Amino acid sequence: MLLFTGRAHPALAGHIAAELGTGIVPTQARDFANGEIYVRHEASVRGADCFVVQSHTDPINTWIMEQLIMVDALKRASARSITVVAPFYGYSRQDKKHRGREPISARLVADLMGAAGADRIITIDLHTDQIVGFFDGPVDHLFAMPILADHIAGLEPRDRLTVVSPDAGRVRVADRWCDRLGVPLAIVHKKRDKDVAHQVSVHEVVGDVAGRVCVLVDDMIDTAGTICAAAEALYEAGADDVIVAATHGILSGPAVDRLKNSRVSRFVFTDTLPSAADTGLDKVEVLSIAPLIAQAVREIFENGSVTSLLDDL
Amino acid sequence: MLLFTGRAHPALAGHIAAELGTGIVPTQARDFANGEIYVRHEASVRGADCFVVQSHTDPINTWIMEQLIMVDALKRASARSITVVAPFYGYSRQDKKHRGREPISARLVADLMGAAGADRIITIDLHTDQIVGFFDGPVDHLFAMPILADHIAGLEPRDRLTVVSPDAGRVRVADRWCDRLGVPLAIVHKKRDKDVAHQVSVHEVVGDVAGRVCVLVDDMIDTAGTICAAAEALYEAGADDVIVAATHGILSGPAVDRLKNSRVSRFVFTDTLPSAADTGLDKVEVLSIAPLIAQAVREIFENGSVTSLLDDL
Amino acid sequence: MLLFTGRAHPALAGHIAAELGTGIVPTQARDFANGEIYVRHEASVRGADCFVVQSHTDPINTWIMEQLIMVDALKRASARSITVVAPFYGYSRQDKKHRGREPISARLVADLMGAAGADRIITIDLHTDQIVGFFDGPVDHLFAMPILADHIAGLEPRDRLTVVSPDAGRVRVADRWCDRLGVPLAIVHKKRDKDVAHQVSVHEVVGDVAGRVCVLVDDMIDTAGTICAAAEALYEAGADDVIVAATHGILSGPAVDRLKNSRVSRFVFTDTLPSAADTGLDKVEVLSIAPLIAQAVREIFENGSVTSLLDDL
Amino acid sequence: MLLFTGRAHPALAGHIAAELGTGIVPTQARDFANGEIYVRHEASVRGADCFVVQSHTDPINTWIMEQLIMVDALKRASARSITVVAPFYGYSRQDKKHRGREPISARLVADLMGAAGADRIITIDLHTDQIVGFFDGPVDHLFAMPILADHIAGLEPRDRLTVVSPDAGRVRVADRWCDRLGVPLAIVHKKRDKDVAHQVSVHEVVGDVAGRVCVLVDDMIDTAGTICAAAEALYEAGADDVIVAATHGILSGPAVDRLKNSRVSRFVFTDTLPSAADTGLDKVEVLSIAPLIAQAVREIFENGSVTSLLDDL
Amino acid sequence: MLLFTGRAHPALAGHIAAELGTGIVPTQARDFANGEIYVRHEASVRGADCFVVQSHTDPINTWIMEQLIMVDALKRASARSITVVAPFYGYSRQDKKHRGREPISARLVADLMGAAGADRIITIDLHTDQIVGFFDGPVDHLFAMPILADHIAGLEPRDRLTVVSPDAGRVRVADRWCDRLGVPLAIVHKKRDKDVAHQVSVHEVVGDVAGRVCVLVDDMIDTAGTICAAAEALYEAGADDVIVAATHGILSGPAVDRLKNSRVSRFVFTDTLPSAADTGLDKVEVLSIAPLIAQAVREIFENGSVTSLLDDL
Amino acid sequence: MLLFTGRAHPALAGHIAAELGTGIVPTQARDFANGEIYVRHEASVRGADCFVVQSHTDPINTWIMEQLIMVDALKRASARSITVVAPFYGYSRQDKKHRGREPISARLVADLMGAAGADRIITIDLHTDQIVGFFDGPVDHLFAMPILADHIAGLEPRDRLTVVSPDAGRVRVADRWCDRLGVPLAIVHKKRDKDVAHQVSVHEVVGDVAGRVCVLVDDMIDTAGTICAAAEALYEAGADDVIVAATHGILSGPAVDRLKNSRVSRFVFTDTLPSAADTGLDKVEVLSIAPLIAQAVREIFENGSVTSLLDDL
Repeated sequence: MLLFTGRAHPALAGHIAAELGTGIVPTQARDFANGEIYVRHEASVRGADCFVVQSHTDPINTWIMEQLIMVDALKRASARSITVVAPFYGYSRQDKKHRGREPISARLVADLMGAAGADRIITIDLHTDQIVGFFDGPVDHLFAMPILADHIAGLEPRDRLTVVSPDAGRVRVADRWCDRLGVPLAIVHKKRDKDVAHQVSVHEVVGDVAGRVCVLVDDMIDTAGTICAAAEALYEAGADDVIVAATHGILSGPAVDRLKNSRVSRFVFTDTLPSAADTGLDKVEVLSIAPLIAQAVREIFENGSVTSLLDDL
Repeated sequence: MLLFTGRAHPALAGHIAAELGTGIVPTQARDFANGEIYVRHEASVRGADCFVVQSHTDPINTWIMEQLIMVDALKRASARSITVVAPFYGYSRQDKKHRGREPISARLVADLMGAAGADRIITIDLHTDQIVGFFDGPVDHLFAMPILADHIAGLEPRDRLTVVSPDAGRVRVADRWCDRLGVPLAIVHKKRDKDVAHQVSVHEVVGDVAGRVCVLVDDMIDTAGTICAAAEALYEAGADDVIVAATHGILSGPAVDRLKNSRVSRFVFTDTLPSAADTGLDKVEVLSIAPLIAQAVREIFENGSVTSLLDDL
Repeated sequence: MLLFTGRAHPALAGHIAAELGTGIVPTQARDFANGEIYVRHEASVRGADCFVVQSHTDPINTWIMEQLIMVDALKRASARSITVVAPFYGYSRQDKKHRGREPISARLVADLMGAAGADRIITIDLHTDQIVGFFDGPVDHLFAMPILADHIAGLEPRDRLTVVSPDAGRVRVADRWCDRLGVPLAIVHKKRDKDVAHQVSVHEVVGDVAGRVCVLVDDMIDTAGTICAAAEALYEAGADDVIVAATHGILSGPAVDRLKNSRVSRFVFTDTLPSAADTGLDKVEVLSIAPLIAQAVREIFENGSVTSLLDDL
Repeated sequence: MLLFTGRAHPALAGHIAAELGTGIVPTQARDFANGEIYVRHEASVRGADCFVVQSHTDPINTWIMEQLIMVDALKRASARSITVVAPFYGYSRQDKKHRGREPISARLVADLMGAAGADRIITIDLHTDQIVGFFDGPVDHLFAMPILADHIAGLEPRDRLTVVSPDAGRVRVADRWCDRLGVPLAIVHKKRDKDVAHQVSVHEVVGDVAGRVCVLVDDMIDTAGTICAAAEALYEAGADDVIVAATHGILSGPAVDRLKNSRVSRFVFTDTLPSAADTGLDKVEVLSIAPLIAQAVREIFENGSVTSLLDDL
Repeated sequence: MLLFTGRAHPALAGHIAAELGTGIVPTQARDFANGEIYVRHEASVRGADCFVVQSHTDPINTWIMEQLIMVDALKRASARSITVVAPFYGYSRQDKKHRGREPISARLVADLMGAAGADRIITIDLHTDQIVGFFDGPVDHLFAMPILADHIAGLEPRDRLTVVSPDAGRVRVADRWCDRLGVPLAIVHKKRDKDVAHQVSVHEVVGDVAGRVCVLVDDMIDTAGTICAAAEALYEAGADDVIVAATHGILSGPAVDRLKNSRVSRFVFTDTLPSAADTGLDKVEVLSIAPLIAQAVREIFENGSVTSLLDDL
Repeated sequence: MLLFTGRAHPALAGHIAAELGTGIVPTQARDFANGEIYVRHEASVRGADCFVVQSHTDPINTWIMEQLIMVDALKRASARSITVVAPFYGYSRQDKKHRGREPISARLVADLMGAAGADRIITIDLHTDQIVGFFDGPVDHLFAMPILADHIAGLEPRDRLTVVSPDAGRVRVADRWCDRLGVPLAIVHKKRDKDVAHQVSVHEVVGDVAGRVCVLVDDMIDTAGTICAAAEALYEAGADDVIVAATHGILSGPAVDRLKNSRVSRFVFTDTLPSAADTGLDKVEVLSIAPLIAQAVREIFENGSVTSLLDDL
């Protein structure tokens, strides 16, 4: 079993290696002057089960391409099997066509990985579960929810908590939190203004939140616009406090400012992406995902059961 | 352009042909004594754009297999292109792994169609939009919602209506109805009993339904257990009336009895499946999907835009 | 090595497991109300060589689909290799186009197995040997003839036996019996009436059968029409006795009645299908195929030689 | 529509072109000193439906390779479709595994054609019909039997004729002749000596041939050993005369001498291979297959029905 | 025929469209906050032959990914054919493994294009001709040399010119220039210092250059280090003047400074990349490649001959 | 690990086996009368890593086909992995299109090997390194240059040597020799006569060769026309002596005569092909390539590093 990392988030790969008690195979990777990536693995990979860690953070296309190139090099060097480890799987929000003549880029990414030579994918909290079906091979789809939920449960008494979905499309995820924590559900429902296309006019709170500690849950926080507006709606509906929990802290563009200025008391992320750790904000907590990935890699290598691993959590 | 039909739902194919002003190419299809299907197309298909209509109704595996065999025969007879028309796409609920070692049968069906020789799929209201990405080629995914919603809007004043999602996973669909009709949203939220696996203990109504005409919307009604329980919860929460609207009236097992015994005043389906028309119940209305499919077929054959067709509706 | 079985013929899988001294991995399999099959394997399969037993008995399309779904689930759960064990391979009679615009369904079945993720096929007595070439991978094609022939040889003195092919297309199979038993060959030749399409008018016996014990041999007996007519022709040509031997006792539709009413003294089948054991007729004998399959599975798992196994028989 | 020919049998391609009223696109083809073939098509093929005629005569591997190279060149030059025309399809006798660890070379040839870029195959009288299923695409499989049988029927009164299969494996072909001509069937049955592997000891005639004109039919005559021995057995069984009819006159090695020395009065072949015309024997007749192929090419190009063409004959 | 452009080099696409007398189909393309690209084609593409222009300039991975996404969207929208137009094909220098465990990224790019759905590639002056063989389909590989060479020939009398290859690997390209212009060849040969890996110690001039106008030719100029050193070696060997001609002016990093400071009197590029036009240097000339591409697109659309086009030039 | 050989160059396979201390698995291979090859492997291969040695010597198409058939038989017999060992890889000179409507036969050969079932290729000194990228899998590309160069270095003092490329296209290979031996480079430059297509009029020597021992290096010598003309040009330019070194001694047609009549004092080849050993000329030396191949096979089987092997040399 050999572990490799691209240049997107080497710290996470380092933690996974430490959990596994192994090292990372050195890979020479650099950019040519015109931006083309050059990669060379610096130890023999012949006959080995190879795991290539790359989180699809910004510049996202560069890191996806780097991972594809690393996989190609492993394939041509006679690796026995190649597992793509994508803690954050890029383009997962583009998993369907909203309108005609759009791509399904999440499927495209799966196809590209397969074309390059990947045999298996390990990933965390895909935007929708169906993306697992985009890859023609095994996908070990892990869930950070137990890690996040148990952490939140240690912060507040459960009978004060209400889990809140920030919009209609994420209710199923929130529902799983409710099941685990045994607490009620609420929804922030975005009503659109029919006269202004794609314009959300009102954030309506469906369910009781007055006097409650609301846990707004999502798979990812990108620009933080939706989540901060939803939090504001909850405060206005009488919530005592709002905590935000999300697996992937993308935190692009205005996100850090929005987090800082928001009335939300606490943001909890995992380190699937390097960005969450870089905000410098006291109210942001980052939980490590490395033990979960390391356990999955170990089970795969030893032909154990990743399913039972999921059940344990 | 040649239109073919399997034996699952020939009436629908007939309506599509009538809309197109064409006939159906005769296909000899029969079962051998041991259940093997024999198929032969009875006119030359060489160089033709072929559309094979089969709705995946019960016995569903037989009809899927028949469609695969029809496609194989067309491929080997030099059809120029083969479009699978599956008004109801079988196994669409198995679009993800809920637990380890499950199949993703909706992807499998797409792979089988591709292996047999299908170039394109036309289908209506997939259980999730992501299934479009399971097929490695164009999928024309049509929506019956405008047909259903406009029909409902003609039955009741809009300001009395509330659109209701029967569970957390269908909120996004209900949300589209709200947008189109400009009416409020409610959700029936199934709370599970943690001590009894998969046991729903309570149907909680999230949102205001008292005194309203509730339109419970779903993509399909199978045994009608969930939808009738949800309707009951709405009546108990003070709803004036409940109407159920769904694209696919599968109506398996106890469904017809449940519909009959339910307090729901009206069920509206389309004829993507033959079953809805066979209930013999006055409160069941069936709207024809044939014009929508015919229009898509025509646009495909004439290289027009199915997208604009969707926008028109 | 893990052994799985679908619901078509679990008794045979049980016998194979017993021969191997192993158990069958439990698989949860049930039908949804609309006939969709749900499958889940209940033990870890990661890294295992998996053998999926399913005999394609009636309802044949359901069982083929169930096997495909089981294979898909294994593929997505990281099985190391997947071997489809199809003691009776469905659609094997549709191995060529008799006329234009027919499918080649035996090739289609091979393609579907491959698309689902099968790496290898084990099967018994395909309708024609060429079907082995339909699958793009190894096929272990086993022969039941030695089991059947040795059994017959114990019933009658060889110098009384004549092996008879029931029609022109099966002469090569009968020829192999002649070689093994060292006895003469005869053929029942169906002459067609040119004015009535596909109508057999006369069964002509080519070769000497008067005063002989005729062994009518075939790969499968489906409705038993051909075989019983051929037997009758042999009696009329002066045969002393007629025994029928066939690997696959499909016995569909009127078959059991025909067997009962036939003058044939004895029918010998193997248990590749559950139907032969269910006739309740004294003159039907069923020989077990499980030891042969078990031996092949063991050789495959231990990288031994299935060829030498065939030679031993 | 563009017609190309390799160097194996240009005369046949010329006849096909003449039948079609078209020319052959010039292709530069030569061997490098070490036997590598160089090919270049000398007119634009972009967007054209291309037909590449090559009969797999000796040196057979060279001509197969030349055809593959011609197809590759067409694919890379943007041909719209590529049809391989193989009047004699090489390796068609290797269509199954007789023993373990043999190839299925007839499937391999189909795979190679597909890998090079062929979209469709036209061929005449494959050794078995199942080979059609080896190619993953349309195969137009034409039959020379009507041409041969009608010619024979003009030579002798039908009531004197008996059709004879030269061995057990070709009975089905002989059966089709019987159906067309309305004459009886006989079989020459090779009995093997069990002590001498693969040694045929006796040719037993099954059926009545005394005083008859026997038409020994086969798909191909290679070294002519089997067919001449069968003819001899027929004369010894009292046949008045023996005529041999076969589609493919391969006539390798000792074949021409055997034909000359045989008591057979007449050999009838088609010109699918150049060899039959080269024997210089009076008793060899060669019928032209070019009109049949030309008609198939025309139907394909005009999207007509090859099936009806077959029915016409 | 529909023409599309990514955001890498829209000016070139505009020129191609102008040459063709057509417009560019509007495509909405933008980046999400985390760098994911969103694309939507804004007119129906069903049944159309689509050409997607994208030059792989810096940020190269972003533009390759954008082109892949555009192709995916076209495939899913039922385009009849999709041609990737890559005037500069990224990663073409990584066309082989220099050492073990390197990728072959030029093949990977071809595989990715194929996986996304591209049917054909049009490109200019690949780093090596073999890259054409990396794509499993037609590649129209155009050459800018005639445009560049004819331009140079208009600047100086031919009898004063010597064509010079800047290193051993580019001699074949220089050789083609010599053939066209009828002038002598020289080579700058980099001698490596064996003690310092990859360190070029001396630029040795092989051939006569004293008193000559040297035309240093290459397919691309990236950082301009090699070419400027080669030019310096030529001046030191007595060259009167040095002109540099290259198809692709990548001009990364220190390139513009090196051009400015070099003694080379003139640099001639084409506009396959936007960078050459942006240098602001008087001694840089940019010739338009749009007419050549437009002609190829037109021939492809009209099924004319791109080969004859190449011969014309 | 099992070693197989075709009939092209069994002596080499024997040497490889001896180096490995193993035997060659017996394969029955013979030609049918019409030239079709029959192959059967005579020991179980199930689960084994199989290496199939075949050098593509004349009759080259026959031996390529034989290797494909051997691979097909292994695939169908459940070999675990199949490595094609092609010491001389046929058609490697056809690695690009010189003009329109040519094939890229070197890619075709790679595709055919993949279609037959090859997982990996081992080969020596491909005509261009890019051919490695033609195969969709690992290629272990070995270099004979160290063997040849070290041998030459033992014949003459290095300060007398000049390495010479016989034409512009092989300069890079010559350059590698210069690097290894630390000696200067020269080039023989073929100038073409523009009025006579493909006619070389003059061989111009670029670089200093007077009084030197010139080592003319190439990957292969086929008809020896180019190399002998180049040698002559070197003698005329004042060379003291000329030695020719090449990996592959194809030596077709007039080659042996040319070698005999040439002023070249010594030709050094390896035994990748049987032809070099068969010349009967004293001035031809043949070095064994078997140890290099054996070492690569061993590293592959033991999952060692072929890269380090290359570095060692």
